[in-house]
Amino acid sequence: MPSRASEQVINLIEAGLRDGSLKAGSRIPGERTLCMECGVGRSSVREGLRVLEAFGIIRSSAGTGPDAGSFIASEPQEGFSRAMAMHLLVRSFNVADTIEFRELVEGWSAAQAAHCEDSAQRDAALAEAAALLDRMDDPKINQETFHDLDMQFHTLISALGGNAVVDTTLGALRSSVLGYVLAAVKQLPDWRAEVEILQKEHRLLLAAVHNRDSAEAQRIAVQHIRGFAERAKIGLQQ
Amino acid sequence: MPSRASEQVINLIEAGLRDGSLKAGSRIPGERTLCMECGVGRSSVREGLRVLEAFGIIRSSAGTGPDAGSFIASEPQEGFSRAMAMHLLVRSFNVADTIEFRELVEGWSAAQAAHCEDSAQRDAALAEAAALLDRMDDPKINQETFHDLDMQFHTLISALGGNAVVDTTLGALRSSVLGYVLAAVKQLPDWRAEVEILQKEHRLLLAAVHNRDSAEAQRIAVQHIRGFAERAKIGLQQ
Repeated sequence: MPSRASEQVINLIEAGLRDGSLKAGSRIPGERTLCMECGVGRSSVREGLRVLEAFGIIRSSAGTGPDAGSFIASEPQEGFSRAMAMHLLVRSFNVADTIEFRELVEGWSAAQAAHCEDSAQRDAALAEAAALLDRMDDPKINQETFHDLDMQFHTLISALGGNAVVDTTLGALRSSVLGYVLAAVKQLPDWRAEVEILQKEHRLLLAAVHNRDSAEAQRIAVQHIRGFAERAKIGLQQ
Repeated sequence: MPSRASEQVINLIEAGLRDGSLKAGSRIPGERTLCMECGVGRSSVREGLRVLEAFGIIRSSAGTGPDAGSFIASEPQEGFSRAMAMHLLVRSFNVADTIEFRELVEGWSAAQAAHCEDSAQRDAALAEAAALLDRMDDPKINQETFHDLDMQFHTLISALGGNAVVDTTLGALRSSVLGYVLAAVKQLPDWRAEVEILQKEHRLLLAAVHNRDSAEAQRIAVQHIRGFAERAKIGLQQ
C-alpha cells in the first residue's frame, strides 16, 4: 500500500465518491488544494493521484485549458482488468482456478445473452459478432490476430448479458489468460485443426444466443472453454 | 494510467513475472538499478513502484538491513479487493449488477464447499464458522460487528470451495458492498428481526455444507443474498 501521506489523498477521493460529491466526470481539486485539505506535501498528493490513475479511478489531461486537470473516470474498467491480470501473473491465482471461474461466469453470461430483449443494439452486436467470425475464417490469419478477434467475439456476446460486473470481470479474466492461450497454442500439434473446432463452437454459440436457447448457450460456452484448455493442456502443468 | 516513464518500471516487473525470473517473495532490484534498466529518472521509478504497491503486487520494507527493500507480494488480494471496491464507488458497477454477480458466485462457491474432501482443515473451518455464528447470537451485538462477523462467516465457507480466484473475487465483492449493507440495515424497520432471518439461513447453509448437500447449499446461499437485498431494498434505488 502507498505511504500514509498519499493514502490520505486516496481516502479523500473515496469519501467524495461515497457521499456523492464526486461522480464520473467530476473534476478533482488541484494539487495545491489537495495539499491543504489533506495536510500533506505535493509529492504525496502526486503519489496518491498516480495510484488512483493506475486503478483507473481518475484520468488526467495535461495542459492549462478548461479541460486540463484530473477527473473521475467514466470508463474505469481498464485499471480493474489490469489489477486482475497482475494477480494472475503473481500466481496468487493459478490458471486452473481461473479457467474454472471462467467456465462458471462465461456460461452464465452466455445464458443471459440468450435471454436479452430485442433491440437494435442486440441486432447490431449479433451482426458484429458474425462479422468477426467471418474474419477469423481467413486461412492466412496469424495466431495473435485470431485469438484477439476471439476475445472480441466473446466480449460482444457477454456484453449482451447486460451485467457490467460480470462483463468487466470476464474481460479481465480473458485478457489475463491471453498470454497463456498464446503460449499454449504454439504447443498444439495442429493449430489449424484447433481453429476449426473453435470456429464451429463459436457459430453454435452465436446461433444459440440468436435463437434464445439459454441452456444450449451455457452448455456450449462451458464446453468451449473446457475443451480448449484440455486440448492445449492449459492449467494442467500446475 | 501512470506516466510513460513509470509505466516502463511496471512493464519490467510484469515481464519478470511472465518469464518466471520474479515470483512471490522475490526481491525487486533497487531504485538505482531500475533507473538504469528502464532508462528513467528516480521519481518515475518511485511512481511505478507505488502503483505496483497499490495493486498489491509488491510490498516494501523500510530500513537498510537484509530484509529492507521491495519484494513481490505473496498475498496480493488486498490491492485487488480495493480496486473492485473503488469501481463500485465510481458506479461503473451498479449495486444490482453486483448482487446478481454475487448470487452466481456465492451460490457456486457454497456448492463447492459442500463437495470438498474431508480434512482437518475442513473440520477446523466448519468449527470456526459455527463459533462465529454463536458470537453473532449475542443480543447486545451492534450492527457493524454483526455484519463484519457475517462477512467472516461467508469467507470461511467460500474458502472451503478451494478456488482462489472465486474466493478473492467474493472477498472483494463482499467488502465493496459492506458500505451499502450497513447503510441499508439502518433503514430496516426492525434490524433484530432481520438478524433472526439471517442467522437461521446461516445455520441452514452451514448444515448443508456439513452434510455435503451441494444443491441445498447453493439454493440457500442464493436465497440468503437475494432475500436480504429485497428486504433492505439494496440495489432497487437505481
